[in-house]
Amino acid sequence: MQEIVAIVRANMVGPTKEALTKAGCPSFSCTKCLGRGKKGMDNATLRMVMENGELPRTPTGESLTEVGRLIPKRLFNICVPDNKAEAVVKAIIEANGTSHPGDGKIFVMPVEESYVVRTGERVDA
Amino acid sequence: MQEIVAIVRANMVGPTKEALTKAGCPSFSCTKCLGRGKKGMDNATLRMVMENGELPRTPTGESLTEVGRLIPKRLFNICVPDNKAEAVVKAIIEANGTSHPGDGKIFVMPVEESYVVRTGERVDA
Amino acid sequence: MQEIVAIVRANMVGPTKEALTKAGCPSFSCTKCLGRGKKGMDNATLRMVMENGELPRTPTGESLTEVGRLIPKRLFNICVPDNKAEAVVKAIIEANGTSHPGDGKIFVMPVEESYVVRTGERVDA
Repeated sequence: MQEIVAIVRANMVGPTKEALTKAGCPSFSCTKCLGRGKKGMDNATLRMVMENGELPRTPTGESLTEVGRLIPKRLFNICVPDNKAEAVVKAIIEANGTSHPGDGKIFVMPVEESYVVRTGERVDA
Repeated sequence: MQEIVAIVRANMVGPTKEALTKAGCPSFSCTKCLGRGKKGMDNATLRMVMENGELPRTPTGESLTEVGRLIPKRLFNICVPDNKAEAVVKAIIEANGTSHPGDGKIFVMPVEESYVVRTGERVDA
Repeated sequence: MQEIVAIVRANMVGPTKEALTKAGCPSFSCTKCLGRGKKGMDNATLRMVMENGELPRTPTGESLTEVGRLIPKRLFNICVPDNKAEAVVKAIIEANGTSHPGDGKIFVMPVEESYVVRTGERVDA
């Protein structure tokens, strides 16, 4: 069993739910979070870029003004059998890809054990 | 050290806290999340079931109407020494089991390192 | 790649952001959570301590009245290349250490795979 952690846009919960259902792994937990990607840049670099006058002229420059701002995201925790992890990752990518920065990240973590609380039994799927 | 991730009913934070304390591992973080289990079913299957007229007549059918709805849950992150993980899992199961679907899931993950921020020291318990 | 999970004081998001940027790993997700540390003590012990009259007289005793209360915290999920994990842990400790209990905990977990949703490509940094 593996845990798939997917951080996606706040408005993509619906499409992600549907993609998970279609991939045969409907179970998940979803948490509101704030985040940022690689645009988080150190202030000295930012100031240097601004002093060089690049900021107002380029789209890259514009995005730099967002440097400190955190963006609302949704974090999915999805635990799946090992043999389904690849398909689930692919389904999440297909449902969430818009070709614009900020689509999100996916991380795959190992899970050692898994239990159903109701029955107390250990499961591996 | 291992991380125990427990997803439980929203009204079970109190009993879970008490169970962790009794098991000798009181430290945890708890996050509000939304989730669903295996009832998340693909729409085509759902339609088929509904067309067969099974929906309004059976308890199973009734639960299917909840297919897309997410249920408020609480997600516990509990990091414990390896030799206490089994007891903590058991304590969570005992405190949260109601024999009804929706009691929750528990996942055990490996933790490689662990630090106390105040002292900066690495700990393994 | 490794995941660094850092649980810090609710008012330390800003300093932590800055520390991550300076350490060269600006990307993260941050979630509101509630938590407690080792002060979570079982009720029988607590009662015994109180009956011994230690509670109102010592600072330790005073902190015991907080036994059941959960403290608002912020949980950071930060995925970093293996060779940067140590520096990031150190940066978080330096930014958050006040020498008072409640500064937080840091856990390092293994990450098996990592993907950029926008491009669908697998990355290791």
